[in-house]
Amino acid sequence: MTAKDIKDILEKLKSGNISTDDAMMHLRDLPFKDLGFAKIDNHRELRTGVPEVIYCAGKTIDQAVQIFQYINERGSTILGTRASIEQFEAVKKICPQAIYNSAARAIIVEKQKIENTKSYIAVITAGSADIPVAEEAAITAEIFGNKVERIFDVGVAGIHRLFAHMDLIRGAKVVVAVAGMEGALPSVLGGLIDKPIIAVPTSVGYGANFQGLSALLTMLNTCAPGVAVVNIDNGFGAGYMASSINRL
Amino acid sequence: MTAKDIKDILEKLKSGNISTDDAMMHLRDLPFKDLGFAKIDNHRELRTGVPEVIYCAGKTIDQAVQIFQYINERGSTILGTRASIEQFEAVKKICPQAIYNSAARAIIVEKQKIENTKSYIAVITAGSADIPVAEEAAITAEIFGNKVERIFDVGVAGIHRLFAHMDLIRGAKVVVAVAGMEGALPSVLGGLIDKPIIAVPTSVGYGANFQGLSALLTMLNTCAPGVAVVNIDNGFGAGYMASSINRL
Amino acid sequence: MTAKDIKDILEKLKSGNISTDDAMMHLRDLPFKDLGFAKIDNHRELRTGVPEVIYCAGKTIDQAVQIFQYINERGSTILGTRASIEQFEAVKKICPQAIYNSAARAIIVEKQKIENTKSYIAVITAGSADIPVAEEAAITAEIFGNKVERIFDVGVAGIHRLFAHMDLIRGAKVVVAVAGMEGALPSVLGGLIDKPIIAVPTSVGYGANFQGLSALLTMLNTCAPGVAVVNIDNGFGAGYMASSINRL
Amino acid sequence: MTAKDIKDILEKLKSGNISTDDAMMHLRDLPFKDLGFAKIDNHRELRTGVPEVIYCAGKTIDQAVQIFQYINERGSTILGTRASIEQFEAVKKICPQAIYNSAARAIIVEKQKIENTKSYIAVITAGSADIPVAEEAAITAEIFGNKVERIFDVGVAGIHRLFAHMDLIRGAKVVVAVAGMEGALPSVLGGLIDKPIIAVPTSVGYGANFQGLSALLTMLNTCAPGVAVVNIDNGFGAGYMASSINRL
Amino acid sequence: MTAKDIKDILEKLKSGNISTDDAMMHLRDLPFKDLGFAKIDNHRELRTGVPEVIYCAGKTIDQAVQIFQYINERGSTILGTRASIEQFEAVKKICPQAIYNSAARAIIVEKQKIENTKSYIAVITAGSADIPVAEEAAITAEIFGNKVERIFDVGVAGIHRLFAHMDLIRGAKVVVAVAGMEGALPSVLGGLIDKPIIAVPTSVGYGANFQGLSALLTMLNTCAPGVAVVNIDNGFGAGYMASSINRL
Amino acid sequence: MTAKDIKDILEKLKSGNISTDDAMMHLRDLPFKDLGFAKIDNHRELRTGVPEVIYCAGKTIDQAVQIFQYINERGSTILGTRASIEQFEAVKKICPQAIYNSAARAIIVEKQKIENTKSYIAVITAGSADIPVAEEAAITAEIFGNKVERIFDVGVAGIHRLFAHMDLIRGAKVVVAVAGMEGALPSVLGGLIDKPIIAVPTSVGYGANFQGLSALLTMLNTCAPGVAVVNIDNGFGAGYMASSINRL
Amino acid sequence: MTAKDIKDILEKLKSGNISTDDAMMHLRDLPFKDLGFAKIDNHRELRTGVPEVIYCAGKTIDQAVQIFQYINERGSTILGTRASIEQFEAVKKICPQAIYNSAARAIIVEKQKIENTKSYIAVITAGSADIPVAEEAAITAEIFGNKVERIFDVGVAGIHRLFAHMDLIRGAKVVVAVAGMEGALPSVLGGLIDKPIIAVPTSVGYGANFQGLSALLTMLNTCAPGVAVVNIDNGFGAGYMASSINRL
Amino acid sequence: MTAKDIKDILEKLKSGNISTDDAMMHLRDLPFKDLGFAKIDNHRELRTGVPEVIYCAGKTIDQAVQIFQYINERGSTILGTRASIEQFEAVKKICPQAIYNSAARAIIVEKQKIENTKSYIAVITAGSADIPVAEEAAITAEIFGNKVERIFDVGVAGIHRLFAHMDLIRGAKVVVAVAGMEGALPSVLGGLIDKPIIAVPTSVGYGANFQGLSALLTMLNTCAPGVAVVNIDNGFGAGYMASSINRL
Repeated sequence: MTAKDIKDILEKLKSGNISTDDAMMHLRDLPFKDLGFAKIDNHRELRTGVPEVIYCAGKTIDQAVQIFQYINERGSTILGTRASIEQFEAVKKICPQAIYNSAARAIIVEKQKIENTKSYIAVITAGSADIPVAEEAAITAEIFGNKVERIFDVGVAGIHRLFAHMDLIRGAKVVVAVAGMEGALPSVLGGLIDKPIIAVPTSVGYGANFQGLSALLTMLNTCAPGVAVVNIDNGFGAGYMASSINRL
Repeated sequence: MTAKDIKDILEKLKSGNISTDDAMMHLRDLPFKDLGFAKIDNHRELRTGVPEVIYCAGKTIDQAVQIFQYINERGSTILGTRASIEQFEAVKKICPQAIYNSAARAIIVEKQKIENTKSYIAVITAGSADIPVAEEAAITAEIFGNKVERIFDVGVAGIHRLFAHMDLIRGAKVVVAVAGMEGALPSVLGGLIDKPIIAVPTSVGYGANFQGLSALLTMLNTCAPGVAVVNIDNGFGAGYMASSINRL
Repeated sequence: MTAKDIKDILEKLKSGNISTDDAMMHLRDLPFKDLGFAKIDNHRELRTGVPEVIYCAGKTIDQAVQIFQYINERGSTILGTRASIEQFEAVKKICPQAIYNSAARAIIVEKQKIENTKSYIAVITAGSADIPVAEEAAITAEIFGNKVERIFDVGVAGIHRLFAHMDLIRGAKVVVAVAGMEGALPSVLGGLIDKPIIAVPTSVGYGANFQGLSALLTMLNTCAPGVAVVNIDNGFGAGYMASSINRL
Repeated sequence: MTAKDIKDILEKLKSGNISTDDAMMHLRDLPFKDLGFAKIDNHRELRTGVPEVIYCAGKTIDQAVQIFQYINERGSTILGTRASIEQFEAVKKICPQAIYNSAARAIIVEKQKIENTKSYIAVITAGSADIPVAEEAAITAEIFGNKVERIFDVGVAGIHRLFAHMDLIRGAKVVVAVAGMEGALPSVLGGLIDKPIIAVPTSVGYGANFQGLSALLTMLNTCAPGVAVVNIDNGFGAGYMASSINRL
Repeated sequence: MTAKDIKDILEKLKSGNISTDDAMMHLRDLPFKDLGFAKIDNHRELRTGVPEVIYCAGKTIDQAVQIFQYINERGSTILGTRASIEQFEAVKKICPQAIYNSAARAIIVEKQKIENTKSYIAVITAGSADIPVAEEAAITAEIFGNKVERIFDVGVAGIHRLFAHMDLIRGAKVVVAVAGMEGALPSVLGGLIDKPIIAVPTSVGYGANFQGLSALLTMLNTCAPGVAVVNIDNGFGAGYMASSINRL
Repeated sequence: MTAKDIKDILEKLKSGNISTDDAMMHLRDLPFKDLGFAKIDNHRELRTGVPEVIYCAGKTIDQAVQIFQYINERGSTILGTRASIEQFEAVKKICPQAIYNSAARAIIVEKQKIENTKSYIAVITAGSADIPVAEEAAITAEIFGNKVERIFDVGVAGIHRLFAHMDLIRGAKVVVAVAGMEGALPSVLGGLIDKPIIAVPTSVGYGANFQGLSALLTMLNTCAPGVAVVNIDNGFGAGYMASSINRL
Repeated sequence: MTAKDIKDILEKLKSGNISTDDAMMHLRDLPFKDLGFAKIDNHRELRTGVPEVIYCAGKTIDQAVQIFQYINERGSTILGTRASIEQFEAVKKICPQAIYNSAARAIIVEKQKIENTKSYIAVITAGSADIPVAEEAAITAEIFGNKVERIFDVGVAGIHRLFAHMDLIRGAKVVVAVAGMEGALPSVLGGLIDKPIIAVPTSVGYGANFQGLSALLTMLNTCAPGVAVVNIDNGFGAGYMASSINRL
Repeated sequence: MTAKDIKDILEKLKSGNISTDDAMMHLRDLPFKDLGFAKIDNHRELRTGVPEVIYCAGKTIDQAVQIFQYINERGSTILGTRASIEQFEAVKKICPQAIYNSAARAIIVEKQKIENTKSYIAVITAGSADIPVAEEAAITAEIFGNKVERIFDVGVAGIHRLFAHMDLIRGAKVVVAVAGMEGALPSVLGGLIDKPIIAVPTSVGYGANFQGLSALLTMLNTCAPGVAVVNIDNGFGAGYMASSINRL
């Protein structure tokens, strides 16, 4: 709600078009639906122009179904991240349009197709084990209306594989670089291209990788400029951030 | 060097316009100047369209002077980050144009003014102790040709201070949010605006802040979308990243 | 005080050397029942005016049943925290009055209803995944005789949801704020209200959340005054602390 | 600003007592003074009924003086925490009423004496090295209008010293327990009294104490109920929290 | 093998009582049996006067059986620690004398009873969940020929329970104090008794307990003298250490 | 691809032996096969003279089979590390020559036997629980054409067992020392021999071992010279490194 | 026990209600002198038969002098640990008998010589940089009446140096083993002797030693039995613990 | 001392060539010189063919001088690492041949020049701030008789600088790769060359670099084979390890 919105309400109040109570309601009752265990932003799509996103991990099947049902009825496109196949199957019963992307563990209910950007986001992984996180990023970017190019398994330990795709990578408006283990991919990329890079550490690895801490620290400490980092395994966050840059 | 560049060289070689040795030289001799203790990219400005940046911390005064002198003679704009006043004074002797921004601890030698963007970057701090890091971000963005708006000391523990500046913040194309202690500023911002936010944790605080770890983890774990994080106290990195987004 | 000491006191009482009151006084000072694997405070309810609390996690079903049975026979109200459904079912057989709150994973045997306070405790969560911890806090507060208002899923990434409940929150005598991920809720609350806030970090989240460490550090480092923190996921501790403040 | 405040403004607007712009100003222009590097809440004292607090660490002497001067002219009582003797001496020149508590490293400018509570806060330390943090808590509580009892050097490794003061401790309405090294004092206290305990870990100790981490973890993991924790060395936070409970 | 042993061998060699090869064999072939995957000290019992101990965790059932069989045939008393019930059942088939202590997860094959010490070791736990670790300590001490007194569930959050057993505790020659969560028991004990205390942190607890790190740090940082610490959950190590002190 | 290779291509181009496009292809199309989810280096064996290695952990059975099939058809020897028995069984169907080493969890498809080195690598473990990691190292070294001597269960807590094998250890050209728990084996070895030692910390242990961190830190901090460390449990890395030294 | 309790006892004694012995007994239980900033146990020497120990770090020179003066007048032997040379010089003025051990940073005021034990404590260091901590342990043990043998610089990276002293080490009743860096000395000792070993990690080292964490973890994870650990650099704690064992 | 040495002594004893006491002396008296605070291996040079190395950090000037003097008189080449200029100046007085390498902070006393290897070690740094650690490695390798090639400031954020030196790097027999910040250099190198790489993390960087932890974890987690790691900033260790490989 912007200053202009507030002024509009006040003007209407002054001119007698609305009552004091109505003004109060507009100023105080912010726009969300209360399901008891969750509050859903009714107007977020309006406000931010984006589909609804449901983080499914840790929700019971019943809770997931209730939230999908409510939003589905309002007609929004829905992206359910970290969803189990069981959650999907229950959601599908009340929302037959739902599809499941098993690599990204995502439920997608696409109502209206957002027109794609001309420019594209490159989603790159260091190893093949980083693909699930990269897929979550790619699908998120796509559902938010971005063209995406996937370039997988081009980690720095075999750097010629990366170089072979440099033209495609350089053509992107923004790059999502996903890597576990030592997580050096964004550092090398950062020296080769001058586009913003969203780095995603993954928990892929073992031992002193400490569930992704190793890749996280590498990426934060990169001496290549133009790199910013999201949480370990946070494909959704990277995809959303890349979209918000690509769609500027 | 792109595939097209390589092809050009090869065509010239085939057509006899250049010798094998010349082709070799082009393909192998990459563009940097070797000062012994440091290798300077001669062609980076050309390649990436940006001023030269020198990370001054840990360099002796002699080393700093040598590098400034070399680059200064080539005519590039220079940004020296984490520079001591002693380094500045020595640099100033051989480069009188140099100025020092003490808040940001930066040496600036501006040769050609880059034309400013119309859109602007908002640089925001939670507290007044975060200002040095924010200034480094702001100055970096400015020297790279961006318009910057500074909004300082608007942390979430007095959230009305933040709300009073929402119009200015919402007008930015990209936001740099700088915070120490609990580092919650980007989370709150992320729920209020839909522009990309570069979050910078600072080492401001004490006790279980652990030199910025607290703010870093907060920012990585934000549930607000559209936030990506740089290293603790890394104002330069945030300013550069914001610039690379703002200038897209 | 050994068994022999107790005998001595009783002998003295019998022989008229001390009064009944003296003997009472002596006997109240050493009050526990030894079940071998556990020592139960017989007189704690007397001493502190509170129901008995049993931390059920890590106890075998047999151990849990034995402790419930012993306390139940003495007539105390019992709160079993972190109880499994299997523990509950076994306890119910010997104590049919027992009920199970599955959200809070709590067994409750309410013998005498403590009269409720007029003032109330607000229990607030940032997300819906924080509800189990919040429910443990709420139920603990209720069984200790407090009125509780629940306000769930009002985290700072959608801060208008929080503002919509500010009147209810401001009316509380003490606030329990439960949050995982970046855990910024208590910081924002601390700047909006001037009542004591008990902050509960939860292990909700992933990646660099490190099982709740992120939210814990955020809450400890808050620059908002009037906030104190309990252990990660420690709903019981928060509810008890809030009760001890609300009932002052 | 409560719902009632908003309603009042709206009523005045409707009845024509104020203009739309005035209403806007009231609703939008939140109450703070902008010094450039810091924003001071003009109305906080009004709003929360408390003196102004200035965290002096990391501020230059000039900045400290400017903030003290501004607030001093408005007539508020001021507490400057983590203040150096140099900061104090500069402040004293423009504010002769200022006094310095060297144990607590605090500058105090007391304008109007807040009437003391009848109930008191007990501030307890485990060792003599914990006294500076305890003094910061005690002075904070006193300036916010609380009666304070200090009980120092009664750590659990000589538990008879603690027991000798139990009557004084039991008489308090709320207890602040300050301890470094193993930090076990709040655990023992929590089993002996049924008043709320604010536990303050200190960085006192060496080796595997890790700058207070040891005491912090001990306090968070206490199995005694009725204990909540503030940041390492955060005497101010503990004193403020205790005050907010004691003055309920 | 002591210097005296070596001298004996050399004397025998010089006097012709043994050959050079025999001397070589004595000096080089150290006393162990090679099972391929494990090397068993044949002479340890002789050398140190103690039963054989087998750490069973991580060994296959076959490996466990082979080692028990070999040692059993040599006639040593055997203590198998961290043994599963499956390992026990397989061992029992080839060694019917074996018994299983399920609380301590230990297999015991007692061949010759070591005469018990007159003095005793007190094994104390803070909570009932610490009993498995304490039982491992107690059984270890017993099989090594020590009298043991068990005092369980007397943690510092209900310190009167501890005081009720002070006579029994003070009578011990050495004390093993086992505690999880905040692990404050050894600190309090250290101030009350002047016997050596072996402190055992356990992984009992949750949240910021970090699998026993909290109790470990507490114990290492105790300001009570006369306390030394073994690894988290290391009941065997504590029992062995206590035995080596008690049997001095 | 070396400078000489590039020159050869350029010479051929200049002399007209190959076309510009061919030269481009050679210079740009780097040698790997794209399976979509993984990129396999076709020419690595050629380039580095080593068998193909597949890290099987985290790959689906289908992915594992596809990669084995592709490489198998090209005729390379294959080493699959961290392979499950299920992966092996599926691979065996399409590649009957495959064998499974269950101790090392490795799938081996040996096409052409590499001639063994005369010098040997000694692979040593501290305990019997370290054997799986040691076996991975040993098998890796063997498949890369090295003679290996295994010496297991000779940890420093029974140092005579180590001394009994010193002749065999001293004869090695390079030593792999594998240890969990306190990880002291490489330190002792480093003082006894002057050959390079590759130290491998394992996650064997419990409590403050923190999944191998303890052994890792011990090995990194050794004051014995001639020791370098690989990741926790990284038997493959140690075997490969030892091979690259032994085959010099 | 409050002042009132003491008065009651005295009244009873005066009126003949209790005997002198009874009064004595009551009065011995609560024995400390309150200096305001510190509480000194008047009767500890009586109670535990040991000299007074003052931890001097973090105390002002005035505080140190006051405490020394008070205890000195009562005639106890005093050990001041972690004392600066400045503290010593001030103490010496009011207590000319005081001497300073600069290696151990200890002030010693020896009033009555405790008769030495026949058995001795061996204090061993891995390196020469560990000597200050070892000296603190040795001096502590000596002032508490123990014979001490020092064996320095015999770390495991040159294990023959250790073996040359095995007879002297084996003759000790208890061993204090002091080591920094990888801290492996106690592990090796634990396999060679069957006496209790007190392990002291030191902060000697650099890099991944993390101020002693490396040695601490090594010692806690030792697979040698008969080892217990004190805090990093805690020479006093080790000397006291060794004394309490040696004097049994 | 090998088995053959022992046999020789025993044969001499049997044949009467030496006495029992002489044999004892040979077998027991290991070869070191005891300076009280340090034990120097007299025979190490003989035994291992290497110069003496003195770790000077933490040694007093007197201790450093004494050790240099003793070894100097025996005629060994000496390398003093982590030496201050003050230590050097004192050593120079008693040993005029000593020289100081200020970049590496090393004192060198070269008695007999070891003949250089034909093969060389490449010592590479990512940044110019890593040079001191690299110099320590290079000088160590040189004094141990190795030819060294230095290649500085070729980090992965400007990867063309690295590629320009690939011929020189590929020609090395073993590579030392030194890097701070994100530490990705060894990963990239490991994919480009098939020689053993010794990776040295440095503490160069700031923020989430945590004094070198970031680079350390990166290097341990590299997916490039043929990389092993030494402690943070441990140039000496890397140089020694590289020498022990290069001289095989």
